[in-house]
Amino acid sequence: MIIRDVRLTPIAFRDPPLLNVTGVHEPYATRCIVEIETATGRVGINETYGDKSTYVDLATIAPALVGLNIYDMAGLAAAVRNSIGGAARSEYEMAPGTLSKTAFARCFAAFEVACLDLQGQLCGRPICDLLGGKYRDAVPYSAYLFFKFGGHRDQPNTVDDEWGEVLTPEALLWEARTMVARHGFRSLKLKAGVLSPEAEVAALRMLHQEFPDHPLRMDPNYGWTVETTVKVAHALEGILEYLEDPAKGLTSSRRIAAAINIPIASNMAVTSFEDLPEVVTANAIRIILSDHHYWGGLRATRELGRICDVWGLGLSMHSNSHLGISLMAMTHVAASIPNLTYDCDTHYPWQVDDVIEGGRLRFENGCIRVPSEPGLGVRLDQAKLKELHENHKNFIREDRDDVAEMRKYQPDWAGTLPRY
Amino acid sequence: MIIRDVRLTPIAFRDPPLLNVTGVHEPYATRCIVEIETATGRVGINETYGDKSTYVDLATIAPALVGLNIYDMAGLAAAVRNSIGGAARSEYEMAPGTLSKTAFARCFAAFEVACLDLQGQLCGRPICDLLGGKYRDAVPYSAYLFFKFGGHRDQPNTVDDEWGEVLTPEALLWEARTMVARHGFRSLKLKAGVLSPEAEVAALRMLHQEFPDHPLRMDPNYGWTVETTVKVAHALEGILEYLEDPAKGLTSSRRIAAAINIPIASNMAVTSFEDLPEVVTANAIRIILSDHHYWGGLRATRELGRICDVWGLGLSMHSNSHLGISLMAMTHVAASIPNLTYDCDTHYPWQVDDVIEGGRLRFENGCIRVPSEPGLGVRLDQAKLKELHENHKNFIREDRDDVAEMRKYQPDWAGTLPRY
Repeated sequence: MIIRDVRLTPIAFRDPPLLNVTGVHEPYATRCIVEIETATGRVGINETYGDKSTYVDLATIAPALVGLNIYDMAGLAAAVRNSIGGAARSEYEMAPGTLSKTAFARCFAAFEVACLDLQGQLCGRPICDLLGGKYRDAVPYSAYLFFKFGGHRDQPNTVDDEWGEVLTPEALLWEARTMVARHGFRSLKLKAGVLSPEAEVAALRMLHQEFPDHPLRMDPNYGWTVETTVKVAHALEGILEYLEDPAKGLTSSRRIAAAINIPIASNMAVTSFEDLPEVVTANAIRIILSDHHYWGGLRATRELGRICDVWGLGLSMHSNSHLGISLMAMTHVAASIPNLTYDCDTHYPWQVDDVIEGGRLRFENGCIRVPSEPGLGVRLDQAKLKELHENHKNFIREDRDDVAEMRKYQPDWAGTLPRY
Repeated sequence: MIIRDVRLTPIAFRDPPLLNVTGVHEPYATRCIVEIETATGRVGINETYGDKSTYVDLATIAPALVGLNIYDMAGLAAAVRNSIGGAARSEYEMAPGTLSKTAFARCFAAFEVACLDLQGQLCGRPICDLLGGKYRDAVPYSAYLFFKFGGHRDQPNTVDDEWGEVLTPEALLWEARTMVARHGFRSLKLKAGVLSPEAEVAALRMLHQEFPDHPLRMDPNYGWTVETTVKVAHALEGILEYLEDPAKGLTSSRRIAAAINIPIASNMAVTSFEDLPEVVTANAIRIILSDHHYWGGLRATRELGRICDVWGLGLSMHSNSHLGISLMAMTHVAASIPNLTYDCDTHYPWQVDDVIEGGRLRFENGCIRVPSEPGLGVRLDQAKLKELHENHKNFIREDRDDVAEMRKYQPDWAGTLPRY
């Protein structure tokens, strides 16, 4: 159970031109695939952020892991702490997992999950069992609705993807219908702040009319002022389940919370354990969106679950563009937290590629079944990994930049917040 | 890995006449030994409270565990929740683990540790590895100093135990010297509220003079008023590491904290997760004394550790009279918590009996070495278990009652608080 080798493979996979308040997704999203091999040749895997600083950190840490036992999480923590310094990093708030303040937790998590995969394989149990048990057999996810362009600009042979252009409430309704029909989702979330607040309110009303029993959420990623948020919330009271990161800053959240009857959720104001005391004291954010990728791994996420339970906070789950390994890790930890009562977010239905054996995972009634196979329950397809690694070589960029990408469509695009 | 049988064995073991603010320890202390046997005949063990209501609860739950997988902690939680109702229980504050509010957490913990013992045996790893890794190789404990009578009253053939009577500061200093010489303890804690505050201050000063580098603590178990506490604290500033549960109630703690420069620790004001929000808000108690026996087990205790880290609370560990299985479980979880920075409490040196193979555990330099053997790292000695179970049959009493026991020595003893 001694680590013999740690392999890191940056990959790039196709991503549609999904719009958010700061810009648009680039043609490829990046991730880093982690493989930890033991002296006996067994391999544990994981998937994490693909930005350059994360890769550099992970590559700096990796040699220090050789010789460690796969159960030695204290040794892992020490290796991470000793290997990465206070290097300057990306501070793109749309990807909180890449912020410098989450560097330790993100790097620890990258290797922790792979070690848990190995531990599970060795004792023949799924990871959720190693975290403290399985509180549900299937984990429900929400449909992540985006306004989008039809195809990527400036790509060779650009054609519209199968979803085409979605830039009106009507088109969004069609997108929602397709998502629900295909995957059975029972909650719907709109990446908001893209159209005018009035148009987005109209879209949400249409969604509510079509799906009256589906909880609805909006996430404008700090794109609104306090005033806009209050207006939107008043227009959608009784319709929205929660409103995610409407305006920046705890003071804004406090003012909003005092004026509306819809709970505020966040994965931007709360990105690490150190944020929690202030959040609890402010008492404005009522739902934490966890993410094991940057909260320190699967055990840490369960600890976050306990904190939410103790302080009466709701708990849901954030996602960035990701593939099947992340979806499995998210599913295991979600299964292990009794009080993860909101459907989790996932970008997974927007991707077409994957690196796992047996092809892409399937949602049933909006849920991913919690695997009973040992470890994560998914294995790497080395041919696919190689293919997506080749993509990465061709798609040269250090950090995600939705703002620069948007300027290809709209050269005067500012990307500044708040937008409305 | 399916549970075939659950055995509960109440035991009674010799306990010296140790004094506390409410009275004196009875001639025997009780515990309950838990054995969980799998379909393949493997046995996991644990030790928990021995009061009658705990035993009745555990016995009610036990049949529901047969057929569960040893990894199915969600199934265990459901079995506990479904089996025990809101029965009236002992509310003796000296043993917070027996309070009715901790019933779920205590019963869950009783079986969780035995399941973790089995899980560790099966994967060949010590329990600390299953909790998230080993952050120290040995866990430091503090010497638990008591004033005491020489021997138990009303016992057949009463003779003084080897410690004799300790009712003066001078005798206490001798006791401390013996404890330190035998076990190497590097912290000293006095069960206070027994002599007058002036005499106890004198005792602490003598201890400080003799052991200037040993952190010192006092625990009067709510035995003092706010005024007495402030007086004692002023007299011992710069000498005490912390003051444990000096006076009852968060309002008292707030007043005390505002007036003194010694941090307040507690295992009486904080006995469960539900107490934490108020404790954090009050900001008077600065150190939490964890106890896996009634906080919901080893994983829950690690979660408590995370909460203490996030909110800047100190973390130490409480004990009641216990044997070696508990000491091992305490050692595993203490090893797994990075921020358990205070030496833990233990009554273990006061006991002479045990139920484990190979005889009683040994302290080295005040520490218990974290076992590297699979599971808990200790096994049941069935002959010893039988012997202590026979003790239990002969020592009939439902609940610990230090007040009634004290009346054998002093018939007009009230046992009411605060005492000074």
